[in-house]
Amino acid sequence: MTAETFQRARRPEQKLQRQDAILDAARDLALRDGVRNVSLADIAARVGIHKSALLRYFETREQIFLELAADAWRDWARELHARLDTAEPGSASLVAELFARSFSDRPVLCDLIAHTPLNLERNVSPEAVRHYKQTSLGVVSEGAAIVHSVLPDLTLAESREFVASMASLAGSLWQIANPVPALAALYASDPELAQACVDLAPRLRRTAEILLAGLPASRNPPVLRTAADSV
Amino acid sequence: MTAETFQRARRPEQKLQRQDAILDAARDLALRDGVRNVSLADIAARVGIHKSALLRYFETREQIFLELAADAWRDWARELHARLDTAEPGSASLVAELFARSFSDRPVLCDLIAHTPLNLERNVSPEAVRHYKQTSLGVVSEGAAIVHSVLPDLTLAESREFVASMASLAGSLWQIANPVPALAALYASDPELAQACVDLAPRLRRTAEILLAGLPASRNPPVLRTAADSV
Repeated sequence: MTAETFQRARRPEQKLQRQDAILDAARDLALRDGVRNVSLADIAARVGIHKSALLRYFETREQIFLELAADAWRDWARELHARLDTAEPGSASLVAELFARSFSDRPVLCDLIAHTPLNLERNVSPEAVRHYKQTSLGVVSEGAAIVHSVLPDLTLAESREFVASMASLAGSLWQIANPVPALAALYASDPELAQACVDLAPRLRRTAEILLAGLPASRNPPVLRTAADSV
Repeated sequence: MTAETFQRARRPEQKLQRQDAILDAARDLALRDGVRNVSLADIAARVGIHKSALLRYFETREQIFLELAADAWRDWARELHARLDTAEPGSASLVAELFARSFSDRPVLCDLIAHTPLNLERNVSPEAVRHYKQTSLGVVSEGAAIVHSVLPDLTLAESREFVASMASLAGSLWQIANPVPALAALYASDPELAQACVDLAPRLRRTAEILLAGLPASRNPPVLRTAADSV
């Protein structure tokens, strides 16, 4: 789409098309360069419009990425439904595997999760944050309901703790698993330092298994109470 | 210390004093304003020197914060030693409580953990990253050894998984627990959205309990294998 045709669009469906084109451009660039390296000017250039035209559709760079995060969360929930709605109940290993993959297959979602509280929830209107939070809270609840339906031994509240912890870890571990080139070179040259790196999917799967085993086991913690417990 | 006295210092111990003064200034500002809001110029102004003088001691703003992160990790390890070296073995609840507090009492450490892979490991020399990684890996190993000595039922590798997961979560949950003022106002005005916020110490303690219960329990996961497991 050229700047010319883009600027002529006036009808509501054309406006939606433009918004989608902007979000697609931001997503492509975030996938290629990482969220932190994508500026408003980069997005405008890729869509083929001027920055000022782009700001008719979104408040700021941060709002574009918050919208992208909301989209990515909805896509993530669809994947969980598709994979787990018809699953036979009881398999924690299936849930662990699908959660690990649902994040590791979505690099832009993982990257956005870390950037959301650090960068994206700033420089946007309260309305934009509210809209994003409603989406992300809704998706976490939806994910929790799916987990609870496959693993009915977990309460809904426990399922929610699982989803929230996995989302946090997916965000922070993805950043560690995807170091900048200079750091990747350092890891390659020094096996001892390479321990600090993370292989995302197996680490998420392993942590999911620990959490799913720990949630019921921590209801009555098998703890040897000692005098130190009163510290 | 005035800019005048600072600039006259020439002896090795005076240089160390200056480095400490710079790190103290960066720490104070990070605590007050958050890591992301502290610039090199802010640090120089607080120490009372020109930016160019500051760059005789540190490569970049990011290197100052990496050094601060290394210091904060060492301080964290000292606290664990002080609290757990003489603890009677067996109390997972003591370990959970102390880990939660060791992070929630150290806001600058938590803030730095999230910024390290996103921002700080960029714009520094490979040597500076190597130095930081050696410190952080060493501290994680030290923390794992302490956990293993209090909870000998966990292997050293499992203790390490516990420490690494807690550190990642401390970094990401701290950011959520400390929203920008506009977001905090939104939470205050809307109880439904406030669910998205996190109370750091109790959440970390709860997650520590889940992980400590889950690590031994996930060795032979009590999983109902179904046909879906082959997905």
